[in-house]
Amino acid sequence: MRIIGIDPGIAIMGYGILDYAYNRFSVVNYGAIITTNKESMPKRLEILYNSLWDILNEYKPDAVAFEELFFNQNAKTAIIVGQARGAAVLCAQKSGIDIYEYTPLQVKQAVVGYGRAEKKQIQQMVKMILNLKEIPKPDDTADALAIAICHGHSSHMGDMFRIK
Amino acid sequence: MRIIGIDPGIAIMGYGILDYAYNRFSVVNYGAIITTNKESMPKRLEILYNSLWDILNEYKPDAVAFEELFFNQNAKTAIIVGQARGAAVLCAQKSGIDIYEYTPLQVKQAVVGYGRAEKKQIQQMVKMILNLKEIPKPDDTADALAIAICHGHSSHMGDMFRIK
Repeated sequence: MRIIGIDPGIAIMGYGILDYAYNRFSVVNYGAIITTNKESMPKRLEILYNSLWDILNEYKPDAVAFEELFFNQNAKTAIIVGQARGAAVLCAQKSGIDIYEYTPLQVKQAVVGYGRAEKKQIQQMVKMILNLKEIPKPDDTADALAIAICHGHSSHMGDMFRIK
Repeated sequence: MRIIGIDPGIAIMGYGILDYAYNRFSVVNYGAIITTNKESMPKRLEILYNSLWDILNEYKPDAVAFEELFFNQNAKTAIIVGQARGAAVLCAQKSGIDIYEYTPLQVKQAVVGYGRAEKKQIQQMVKMILNLKEIPKPDDTADALAIAICHGHSSHMGDMFRIK
């Protein structure tokens, strides 16, 4: 099964593509789609959408996994991230790929085995699980790989984590 | 000049299409795209996007106007509305239409001439300005028409209110 994890943002959208079989992961590709504020917000959404569209088309994952967004404060940031996430979710939906969603707690537990793990611990575990020489940069890419790992570990749950 | 005002939401996306010439408006069409929680969130975004795409294609507006979103609290709602807004902005962008944005204050001032106007006052003024028999329902549709009126009144400002 091929999984793409996505960590959406308007400036940086991290992604990580993994093949998962027999409880083992192999890395297909990972990276980040970058936009700058030289472009208008609508143009940035279009860049994110079109770039993700090309990635989904090239790698043809069976599943797309997102992290559920939580914000304790700053609704303004939430709206901006929400718009980027909307473009990414729409892109996955229009590509006809099954879409899953996990809470930050679920991602931490799947990767580190511990729900209160620090960001650095998660990144170290991503590096170890995937046999990488270095922690993937930027953080959004490492996060996207963590989300993909989480989905791999949860894939025996069937549709339980499909976005509702 | 043909203007579409859009008030995005995941359950109800109001729209109002007006022709504006010589300081007068004529109503082209208005309504709302509705989705229910019987569908998944990605499917709802797709329905919103596809329906708006069809509307833009049918009526071919010269400009799309949105209200800038403000939330004082509840970042969870902000993320959901942000996703719907992202789908709508992306749709307008991919349709190649110029996109504008106004604050709630600007919309109120343009429609009622008074920035602290109540919702009901705005709806009454929308009805009067557009010579409608009744206040358009749902509220999201009346709001969308108010945003379109605001853009008409601001259209001599050129690109000043283009989304950045």
